Amino acid sequence: MSAPTPTVAAALSSCPVPHAHRTEITVGHGGGGRLTQDLIDGIFRPAFSGPQTGVAHDGATLHLGASRLAFTTDAHVVSPLFFPGSDIGKIAVNGTVNDLAMCGARPLWLSAAFVLEEGFPIETLRRVAASMQAAAAAAGVAIVTGDTKVVERGKGDGLYVTTAGVGVIEHALAISPTSVRAGDAVLISGDIGRHGMAIMATRESLSFESPIESDCAPLHAHVAALLAAGLDVHCLRDLTRGGLATSLVEIAEGAGLAIGIDETAVPVTELVRGACEILGLEPVYVANEGCFVCILPAAQAAAALAILQRHQGTGEPPALIGTVKAGPAGQVTLRSVIGAERVLDRLSGEQLPRIC
Amino acid sequence: MSAPTPTVAAALSSCPVPHAHRTEITVGHGGGGRLTQDLIDGIFRPAFSGPQTGVAHDGATLHLGASRLAFTTDAHVVSPLFFPGSDIGKIAVNGTVNDLAMCGARPLWLSAAFVLEEGFPIETLRRVAASMQAAAAAAGVAIVTGDTKVVERGKGDGLYVTTAGVGVIEHALAISPTSVRAGDAVLISGDIGRHGMAIMATRESLSFESPIESDCAPLHAHVAALLAAGLDVHCLRDLTRGGLATSLVEIAEGAGLAIGIDETAVPVTELVRGACEILGLEPVYVANEGCFVCILPAAQAAAALAILQRHQGTGEPPALIGTVKAGPAGQVTLRSVIGAERVLDRLSGEQLPRIC
Repeated sequence: MSAPTPTVAAALSSCPVPHAHRTEITVGHGGGGRLTQDLIDGIFRPAFSGPQTGVAHDGATLHLGASRLAFTTDAHVVSPLFFPGSDIGKIAVNGTVNDLAMCGARPLWLSAAFVLEEGFPIETLRRVAASMQAAAAAAGVAIVTGDTKVVERGKGDGLYVTTAGVGVIEHALAISPTSVRAGDAVLISGDIGRHGMAIMATRESLSFESPIESDCAPLHAHVAALLAAGLDVHCLRDLTRGGLATSLVEIAEGAGLAIGIDETAVPVTELVRGACEILGLEPVYVANEGCFVCILPAAQAAAALAILQRHQGTGEPPALIGTVKAGPAGQVTLRSVIGAERVLDRLSGEQLPRIC
Repeated sequence: MSAPTPTVAAALSSCPVPHAHRTEITVGHGGGGRLTQDLIDGIFRPAFSGPQTGVAHDGATLHLGASRLAFTTDAHVVSPLFFPGSDIGKIAVNGTVNDLAMCGARPLWLSAAFVLEEGFPIETLRRVAASMQAAAAAAGVAIVTGDTKVVERGKGDGLYVTTAGVGVIEHALAISPTSVRAGDAVLISGDIGRHGMAIMATRESLSFESPIESDCAPLHAHVAALLAAGLDVHCLRDLTRGGLATSLVEIAEGAGLAIGIDETAVPVTELVRGACEILGLEPVYVANEGCFVCILPAAQAAAALAILQRHQGTGEPPALIGTVKAGPAGQVTLRSVIGAERVLDRLSGEQLPRIC
């Protein structure tokens, strides 16, 4: 493959200034890591948290009569709009389907709001809408309401799509970091890093021996099967912005526990591993769009793995990658190939802007 | 007041090319008039309409167990972000609250997704979040989930906010254009044009004797009171992009009936009328954010007006402005001050970009 362009190298070596000095939004605030968390904790959570409910991670869980609902939203600003394995339409549908699935909900209905830039080709909009409908049909959800706004040339970037979703929760489990217990097994549904590397390769015109395709896929069927089997699922999290490492830190903090991961157990394809090495990226921080962790009692790990295997897509098989421990709250340790342990932090700064 | 700037004059005199020749998105596609309808009919409705449900106007009505839900979304790209009487945060909350109310639903929960431009002041984001929370509290809804994305400088315009909302429908009425009957009364909840003229005055730095303030306000309490009184509400529609004229054409088309409006009965403040005259705009095409039409049996018009009067805000009182007639489907006629009748069409092209 070709060497990284100066743009990539500059992005990778950027050293963010300390948060206390920030008065303006930086690209890193959209990275899904520490700065995004600062915005949520510093602005949105204090503003929006009411007495009954707060701003949740993947989505909110709500009571309506005898029903429990999940409700979630995601803005999609991925660049480019089309890339190997997916596009902004498919990612907008699957991203919201997956957020609902991670709440343990059966996804039902989606909304779609489009911000179009003047001059955007109508034929491209038609392609995106068709891709959204195909993804919705594949996931068994309906896009039931929408909105369209147009901004002047130079005030957007072709197309931004925001989806929101509503699903129904049909079990009594509380799927949340607070349900996680010491001794629980940490499973992963497949290999990591394909989405992020697919975007980076496309954007920077890097050429690999074979193209890396995004893992973008709906995950609701995996979750439905785990629940149908009566497994005592404690926590689910899809590994989007910030990757596996950031997700595990968030879960460990929410649980008030530690998590230990075995690096050799984390599935990564050779292609993704090679591309990450050349670019100086760590696979555990690279975003995915069709991969999640499932945390549940260790005694149920084998049964869960068997179910995840039956739903395996094009990638590597699911794996048991670690254990929840009664260590320091929020501490995630990674034991490397040579047996050395190091602590993983949230993604800091911005590894790759506009990944989703 | 000062004369309109060349920008305004150019916008007003713009003559859109015929739709058949369009291959790119124009600013007019976001105007809420004919071109927006072309996008919905030509792209979104064919793509997204499934067997069970279609893309609705203000929102979708959905069945979940014994409950009926309403679900809606709106992207907000208003420029400037702050203007007399409102701001992007207040409009994002009230816009979605009102779309739910127009479905006859009691608004419950909102999501909020932010697309931030690199360099946007964090303090301004804090002001917008505070404004959203104040509007949510005033409307009795909770902002329960959200998302934040960042785009590079020059790929946005400070801040775009997309809200989605879920509400519950607690009555058996089918509030829809298809429920409208010949002989029904057409009521309006207040005076028209204040939101559009507030934005235009701010954006073009026009100075009036006293500032025109946006009418941005939640409308769910008006609707709840109409329903609580047991009135047989046939159709509700808030008069946003495209204004009163476009909304009535849409309703008349959906009903397969004609509507006759008496221009002298339509409340317009002297300030708004004067500003419209100078700028060559017609108040019936100017957007509102706190005004709606209610269509119901003529025998219930007086009772409905009394209820709307009790919920009157700062503007003019509600009024009976017209009647549904068994004329040509979709025909809306306006009888002028001098008694002349003319047919109103949808807003064509773009009167005022990025009004909401």
